[in-house]
Amino acid sequence: MAKEIERKFLVDGDGWKDGAEKGVRLRQAYLLGAPDRSARVRLFDDTRARITLKFGSGAMSRDEFEYDVPLDDALDMIDHALGHVIDKTRYRVPAGDFVWEVDVYHGDLADLVVAEVELPSETATPHLPDWLGREVTGDRRYTNQALAETGVIPEEDG
Amino acid sequence: MAKEIERKFLVDGDGWKDGAEKGVRLRQAYLLGAPDRSARVRLFDDTRARITLKFGSGAMSRDEFEYDVPLDDALDMIDHALGHVIDKTRYRVPAGDFVWEVDVYHGDLADLVVAEVELPSETATPHLPDWLGREVTGDRRYTNQALAETGVIPEEDG
Repeated sequence: MAKEIERKFLVDGDGWKDGAEKGVRLRQAYLLGAPDRSARVRLFDDTRARITLKFGSGAMSRDEFEYDVPLDDALDMIDHALGHVIDKTRYRVPAGDFVWEVDVYHGDLADLVVAEVELPSETATPHLPDWLGREVTGDRRYTNQALAETGVIPEEDG
Repeated sequence: MAKEIERKFLVDGDGWKDGAEKGVRLRQAYLLGAPDRSARVRLFDDTRARITLKFGSGAMSRDEFEYDVPLDDALDMIDHALGHVIDKTRYRVPAGDFVWEVDVYHGDLADLVVAEVELPSETATPHLPDWLGREVTGDRRYTNQALAETGVIPEEDG
């Protein structure tokens, strides 16, 4: 089991592309969901696959279990998606002591770009690169689960 | 992926014990559930473990995906059980061309004994041993998921 502690931001501009490594295409579907837990299947470049079970409703910290599964199983499971299949490209962007993951969404969610950083503790204070926009840690609308449910980019307030 | 096609019966008397092989103690918990799908973790004799994802609401047939997981993960996951942890001993009982699985429940469900047979098709007609009681195929109250939710043996009608 892994503890997952992360902060999430919208991305403002293309500045992150300078430091980005080669992206990985991710297609993922929620298979089961409840307010405090979920099960997901994810394809990596359509060549390998993994399922993930997450528990806990903390905004920043959750118990997470991940297992590789045969690609054929994953393709069958994607047919059981709840809501929309999420399609995005994930880029690793090292910045200071941390590595950011920048997700560029495709399809109905195109133009949505979100950056996440995994932290060693809830009190860690990562340097925040200047291409970060508004923080959305704990904003449920920007979870992959909510994006899969709605299939649309959340409207900004105001 | 496996297709799961099965029939389920209550058990009447101890006749099944003559043909029974050594039992396996199963402890299992539902982690996520919806009317047409579920995720479960199961411990076998508390020495190995497996998670199972099931999809489909057909009474007899469902898509099923099973993966071995580390025992420590399974013990962590059982702490996230929805409802009650099911505790039972499963005996394989060969009879004619088929092998029945007889589940003897423990704890709050003690005295409940249920027999299941897996079939190659929905039209297969297994010989029904005389120790079988009422058929409960498709009776949701006797699913492990419902038993885990309620923690009590369903009351018989009439």
